Amino acid sequence: MDRWQALTDVPVYQHLVGLAQQPFDLASPEALSLARIRQYCCSAAGIDLLYAMQRVNDEVLDGLQQLADQCKLIEQFRQMRRGAVMNRIHGFPSEERQVLHTACRDLFTESPVEPNASGQARSEIARLKAFLDDLDDGTLVNAQGHPFDTMIHVGIGGSDLGPRSVYEALRVYGRPGRQVFFVSNVDPDDAAVVLRRVNLATTLVNVVSKSGTTLETLTNEALIRRAYTAQGLDPARHCLAVTGEGSPMDNPTRYLRSFYMFDSIGGRYSSTSMVGVVMLGFALGFEWVQEFLEGASSMDETAEEPEMRRNLPLLLAMLGIWNHSFLGASTVAVLSYSQALHRFAAHLQQCDMESNGKSVSRYGESVHLKTGPILWGEPGTNGQHAFYQLLHQGTEIVPVEFIGFRQSQYEEDLEIEGSTSQQKLVANLLAQSLAMARGQENENPNKKFPGNRPNLILLADRLTPKIMGALLALYEAKIVFQGFCWNINSFDQEGVQLGKVLASRVLALMQEVQKGSEGDSAVEMALLRISRMTVK
Amino acid sequence: MDRWQALTDVPVYQHLVGLAQQPFDLASPEALSLARIRQYCCSAAGIDLLYAMQRVNDEVLDGLQQLADQCKLIEQFRQMRRGAVMNRIHGFPSEERQVLHTACRDLFTESPVEPNASGQARSEIARLKAFLDDLDDGTLVNAQGHPFDTMIHVGIGGSDLGPRSVYEALRVYGRPGRQVFFVSNVDPDDAAVVLRRVNLATTLVNVVSKSGTTLETLTNEALIRRAYTAQGLDPARHCLAVTGEGSPMDNPTRYLRSFYMFDSIGGRYSSTSMVGVVMLGFALGFEWVQEFLEGASSMDETAEEPEMRRNLPLLLAMLGIWNHSFLGASTVAVLSYSQALHRFAAHLQQCDMESNGKSVSRYGESVHLKTGPILWGEPGTNGQHAFYQLLHQGTEIVPVEFIGFRQSQYEEDLEIEGSTSQQKLVANLLAQSLAMARGQENENPNKKFPGNRPNLILLADRLTPKIMGALLALYEAKIVFQGFCWNINSFDQEGVQLGKVLASRVLALMQEVQKGSEGDSAVEMALLRISRMTVK
Repeated sequence: MDRWQALTDVPVYQHLVGLAQQPFDLASPEALSLARIRQYCCSAAGIDLLYAMQRVNDEVLDGLQQLADQCKLIEQFRQMRRGAVMNRIHGFPSEERQVLHTACRDLFTESPVEPNASGQARSEIARLKAFLDDLDDGTLVNAQGHPFDTMIHVGIGGSDLGPRSVYEALRVYGRPGRQVFFVSNVDPDDAAVVLRRVNLATTLVNVVSKSGTTLETLTNEALIRRAYTAQGLDPARHCLAVTGEGSPMDNPTRYLRSFYMFDSIGGRYSSTSMVGVVMLGFALGFEWVQEFLEGASSMDETAEEPEMRRNLPLLLAMLGIWNHSFLGASTVAVLSYSQALHRFAAHLQQCDMESNGKSVSRYGESVHLKTGPILWGEPGTNGQHAFYQLLHQGTEIVPVEFIGFRQSQYEEDLEIEGSTSQQKLVANLLAQSLAMARGQENENPNKKFPGNRPNLILLADRLTPKIMGALLALYEAKIVFQGFCWNINSFDQEGVQLGKVLASRVLALMQEVQKGSEGDSAVEMALLRISRMTVK
Repeated sequence: MDRWQALTDVPVYQHLVGLAQQPFDLASPEALSLARIRQYCCSAAGIDLLYAMQRVNDEVLDGLQQLADQCKLIEQFRQMRRGAVMNRIHGFPSEERQVLHTACRDLFTESPVEPNASGQARSEIARLKAFLDDLDDGTLVNAQGHPFDTMIHVGIGGSDLGPRSVYEALRVYGRPGRQVFFVSNVDPDDAAVVLRRVNLATTLVNVVSKSGTTLETLTNEALIRRAYTAQGLDPARHCLAVTGEGSPMDNPTRYLRSFYMFDSIGGRYSSTSMVGVVMLGFALGFEWVQEFLEGASSMDETAEEPEMRRNLPLLLAMLGIWNHSFLGASTVAVLSYSQALHRFAAHLQQCDMESNGKSVSRYGESVHLKTGPILWGEPGTNGQHAFYQLLHQGTEIVPVEFIGFRQSQYEEDLEIEGSTSQQKLVANLLAQSLAMARGQENENPNKKFPGNRPNLILLADRLTPKIMGALLALYEAKIVFQGFCWNINSFDQEGVQLGKVLASRVLALMQEVQKGSEGDSAVEMALLRISRMTVK
């Protein structure tokens, strides 16, 4: 097989470095023309991308297209979807896995691109539908014969952030009378707060862990099971499992129902697998889950389009590559003008930073350029009253990705001074985009805006389940394309291992200290003593 | 008056630049000794700072002490607390205000350092106490004679993030039967969600806006007032105002009670003013508010100590200066190992980035160095399963500030495999701190941890109201010290103005387009047309 190449290895790289010396000046008077705004627009799966406010021109876009071509990004994406072992470090022991999260939603055609994985997904979906039907028709009720009205979703990281952000985004589509709570943190107060708010008798506990060994999740499960037992209830009649086949959690005697996730699906890419859709199916009903998966599937299709200007995920990825690898930005802010997306940035933070926060290539070599950026964000307009000061006038340049919707979800709006709240919301989004790009002169240096803060706008009619699925898949594909371009493995997470090992060591020392022993690991022991954590 | 100097202007600056060429190597085998860990520790107001995991040695710390001295940071802080006009740009029109948020909590002595502002604060506090007493003894009830059990806190930015993060942090101290909801975003869905959950008849609406003209807040207030009217209830019997004297909201006929905030208190520093404590008093009761203010006051006192190693806020500030201005870090992550602090980073994001995201000195000159960093963070252990991959192995170095507690808040814990959840939580914090500092060699390059990721630990016994007050004041003082050191005005926010102006222009254009007119601002109009926001 050909060796994949990083952006620094391909012919067009130096050309782009040259172009980056004088990037397009958004602050010049004629920079933002009607023609430019109209031309720099791309749509797919119900989402429009407006990118006239990026520091690019046609020459840069042509260069980025060549970069995508020379790095064979589309070819790699196609191979990934078709089951190639993309999760590996060549020449070193590594996970050696396929990467098939896209197969979870390739369910709307007679001929899925990877029939085996999509077949598995289809079979789990059918089992989910049967479970949801049982809940609906009263086949599945609690010991007292009452229906379940509440779910506690227990997971962490990929088993929490994605599902939670989608649930928050789509609450307006929730089935009346059903509610979901989330417990993730090993902080015991996280579970304590939720346990005070639910009626355990009518609650399902959805425990999600691929390995079936995640410390936080098992600890919280145990806390919750203890609460059931304390109330004289049988936890096995309330707990569901989402886990890998054969994991310690794959044990039907302990769970009411079990659903499988597979090794080819990384946690941070698992929202469209059983990890996300068991909870979403309970909360929203099966039909909305279908729509959600359809939206994602539709975006995956788009991502195979070779022409960058017509491939929304690739375009988003390459604009990011321009900002980070050529213009030097260290971070990217995702600013959703939708309160419902208030946890979306937290999900993307994992998906992006755990995927691309790497220093070693897929061949075990040190990378030559900075890789994945720090991703952060809070919803607009809230952020405008918080950190936008720095975005407009700070010394750090932060590329911004705005997300907005033409209509609100609840449509409970009010016209004040001639405009609705939704209109005010979107007007603010558009205004911020222009302000960051163009800036403004002022004779008072403290009131001067330098402009040239690159940004783009993702815009859809309304935040529906289908759009949410598309948005999720858009960012997943963006992240994957960027990882390919940097030639890193976006699918492992070796960087989380050392902390786990050390945490076990520190815990063991705590126990020794409690028993009066001195322990032996000098530094850990010193830290323990000085932090006085051994004091009860 | 002497001209204040930036860090680049003072003699010790070049010496520190030299030291930064070879910062202390945390990854060398003997770097972290018992003596170092014990020595690099500082305590104040119930909070310990462990900073052995910073890339500093005694020579660097001496240099940072000199930097603090030569920039006269303590003198400036003392002047600020005593009423100097610190919010100004010399030589240009600017806000020209005192900066007296510290006076709001300087209530526990016979001789406050700025008697006038503390007198105002004391008088508002007395009015708050009377209001809370009226609620408690049944003097103040709704039209049906029922007590109020719910509050909707309506504010945005500084009137939202700080109060909300403190409320979330201290929910365990909440008075039984009372609950608080927050509405901030102009997104109409934000209010819609809350309005569906509350019983308006027993709800107080706390509207917070210093100017009395904040678009989002007035819009949400109008949405909520409409909901009252629709239910045949009189909003004037339910709404409270926290606003500046003489603002459009200072109108007793429209509000049940009004409380004042003052020009000398910036929004992002206002959590200990009426902006925060009216809501906190309702939620927690007056006694806990007193404790909260006492904690903050105690930290303010500490901040006047000239010796950096004994001045917790100054030390925190100078370690940040070292990381950002000398070692080149662009961001800082605040990672709280406490679920209750899940919104604290969002508050700090505003407090820090709106204060120090500036490019112009207090004399109107361009700054020579990068100023305020991008601040971000999510709670641990959640973050460990999300973005810690990048922290350990990414190409961006992110200085980390851990926050932890020896005990949980609810104490509903469970021992599994010999340790409680709280012990696991803190063990993880300590382990992450060590892992980031020391790293680990491995023959597999993908499993190698380079280490030398500077971090520190803030540790307290328990997250109480007093500790929360101290933590808040600690970060406020840190931010102020850093702003002084960069010689910027940390108290204005001119960078938010352009967006406001443009938003009004875009809204006006939307209305013109709806009326069939073409409008006249070419670019805004182009963006409106292409975004299709004018389509109903």
